[in-house]
Amino acid sequence: MKLQKKPNYFLLDVDGVLNTGQFIYNSKGKFGKIFGADDNDALKILSNYIKIEFITSDKKGLKITKKRVVTGMGFKLNFVPNNKRLEWIKKNVKKNVSIYMGDGLFDWILMKNFCYTVSCENSNEITRKYSHYITKNHSGERAVSEACYHILKKFFVGKNLEKIISNYYKKL
Amino acid sequence: MKLQKKPNYFLLDVDGVLNTGQFIYNSKGKFGKIFGADDNDALKILSNYIKIEFITSDKKGLKITKKRVVTGMGFKLNFVPNNKRLEWIKKNVKKNVSIYMGDGLFDWILMKNFCYTVSCENSNEITRKYSHYITKNHSGERAVSEACYHILKKFFVGKNLEKIISNYYKKL
Amino acid sequence: MKLQKKPNYFLLDVDGVLNTGQFIYNSKGKFGKIFGADDNDALKILSNYIKIEFITSDKKGLKITKKRVVTGMGFKLNFVPNNKRLEWIKKNVKKNVSIYMGDGLFDWILMKNFCYTVSCENSNEITRKYSHYITKNHSGERAVSEACYHILKKFFVGKNLEKIISNYYKKL
Amino acid sequence: MKLQKKPNYFLLDVDGVLNTGQFIYNSKGKFGKIFGADDNDALKILSNYIKIEFITSDKKGLKITKKRVVTGMGFKLNFVPNNKRLEWIKKNVKKNVSIYMGDGLFDWILMKNFCYTVSCENSNEITRKYSHYITKNHSGERAVSEACYHILKKFFVGKNLEKIISNYYKKL
Repeated sequence: MKLQKKPNYFLLDVDGVLNTGQFIYNSKGKFGKIFGADDNDALKILSNYIKIEFITSDKKGLKITKKRVVTGMGFKLNFVPNNKRLEWIKKNVKKNVSIYMGDGLFDWILMKNFCYTVSCENSNEITRKYSHYITKNHSGERAVSEACYHILKKFFVGKNLEKIISNYYKKL
Repeated sequence: MKLQKKPNYFLLDVDGVLNTGQFIYNSKGKFGKIFGADDNDALKILSNYIKIEFITSDKKGLKITKKRVVTGMGFKLNFVPNNKRLEWIKKNVKKNVSIYMGDGLFDWILMKNFCYTVSCENSNEITRKYSHYITKNHSGERAVSEACYHILKKFFVGKNLEKIISNYYKKL
Repeated sequence: MKLQKKPNYFLLDVDGVLNTGQFIYNSKGKFGKIFGADDNDALKILSNYIKIEFITSDKKGLKITKKRVVTGMGFKLNFVPNNKRLEWIKKNVKKNVSIYMGDGLFDWILMKNFCYTVSCENSNEITRKYSHYITKNHSGERAVSEACYHILKKFFVGKNLEKIISNYYKKL
Repeated sequence: MKLQKKPNYFLLDVDGVLNTGQFIYNSKGKFGKIFGADDNDALKILSNYIKIEFITSDKKGLKITKKRVVTGMGFKLNFVPNNKRLEWIKKNVKKNVSIYMGDGLFDWILMKNFCYTVSCENSNEITRKYSHYITKNHSGERAVSEACYHILKKFFVGKNLEKIISNYYKKL
């Protein structure tokens, strides 16, 4: 596929992408989620090249997700119920400049509205089938940082990945 | 095996099937269980074709299990002590139209009372031996959603799996 | 090795054997440990053939361990500091009739005081080297139940494993 | 590489090295981290040969980290923000006698300031590329204890590893 232009928007699902997709339940309900290393730093580097936002449909776990994505990492989180996500994407996302990373049962249905799509080795099998790139790392185990590296190399910095990481670090 | 009719009842064990089978203990006892992604959505799709119920023997973790299965997912949960499960199944389950998914040490003993049985790659070795289908995914890591896909394809929708998922999503 | 007699005592380490070996820490310290499926049931079956006890050196996590081993499973737990374990074993264990299952850095040093020893695929490398049997399952993921099956088959019931499990279940 | 002298300082990153690198979030924020077996004991043995310290940049999880590294294990923990770590290392670390173990996105940038470097099988891919030794074990699953064994064998005790572990244990 020949891209019209460089992508300028990267939308990521949260559960099963930025975390393991698992929910720790205790006797009061949904207690916690398990997020991984490096993803935050890699997204920060990538955000110099492309606008990054998250989308979630998990209402019961919304407080947990906000603590990680908004308070912890400083990214915008769009709460959109599952049955409104396709509509929301059609309204808010420009297909030919937008990348999506998703993992779940329905994410492959959304993927035709993006020019480039990413899922993880441990994602739903149909969603993997319809993804342009599948991370070798599992979600919650550096899958997002691997996706960021891939997007950086493919669309923005080519062979200069190490150099731009090093430069980014020195300017922190 | 030639099935008499299409199955109309799917009974699933909870621990080791819908979750990793692991118990997080803290100083007060059983604190939590780890449930996975996609299983709820896949069960919802499958429930248009077959009645779905859960069975559990875990009394100390019953509140946790209820929060996930009943409050979170809206399925019926039968609490049946381990030593009454065989009796309960013989009384409540019609063998030639019923599917079972189990993982544990004793589940293979129950499996002869079902026309079709499923376990997971990380299930007990004897139970795996007596299962018709073993999910490649581990429990708590999309094993149930894989089982739902398998049952949908084998008994209900054949090659139309993607189409019925897509239709289901659009009607949400 | 020709055993003098059938073993009559099975001593198991707790951390890294009955659980994953991992500690969940929160801001107050050691919060929890992750125990697995089937191990309790398999130990109950084996306990009809051999006396089973646990040993632990973890003082800070002792409440957690007691909740699982003593309250939850009903087995005797011996708390013995790490530096007293060898002494304790020499005093309390009859070598030619005793089995040990351990995983850690020092467990191989203790193993010469037992007639048969077990560790797990994810145990310390030297301890694995000195074990008679290494479970394919990881600790906290049915390693102990696999060890129980192995001991039952090797020392007590041979090819009748399925039969004795089935009989045990029916008498519950 | 010919080392000038035996190393006398071993600096370890915490998150992704001594634990799985994962953060359990609950509705109040960062709740917990998952540490592994054997690492503490292996570090204690190694500390008879080389000075050992930890470094962390995680402010929100600092209480959790202190409970494990300082209160639990008794090692010195240096809190240094990510953007000051290179500077701190240049000031505090003598390159030709110092070993570093790290896992993350930026750790490879620091590694040129050490004579020997270690990362884990599940570390960032660039950091692995620039490491002298990559542990087969994952972080939080005996990676640090494997690194300690490697350092002991390579720099201090050669083929006498088992002997010195055994001697250490007997003097506990």
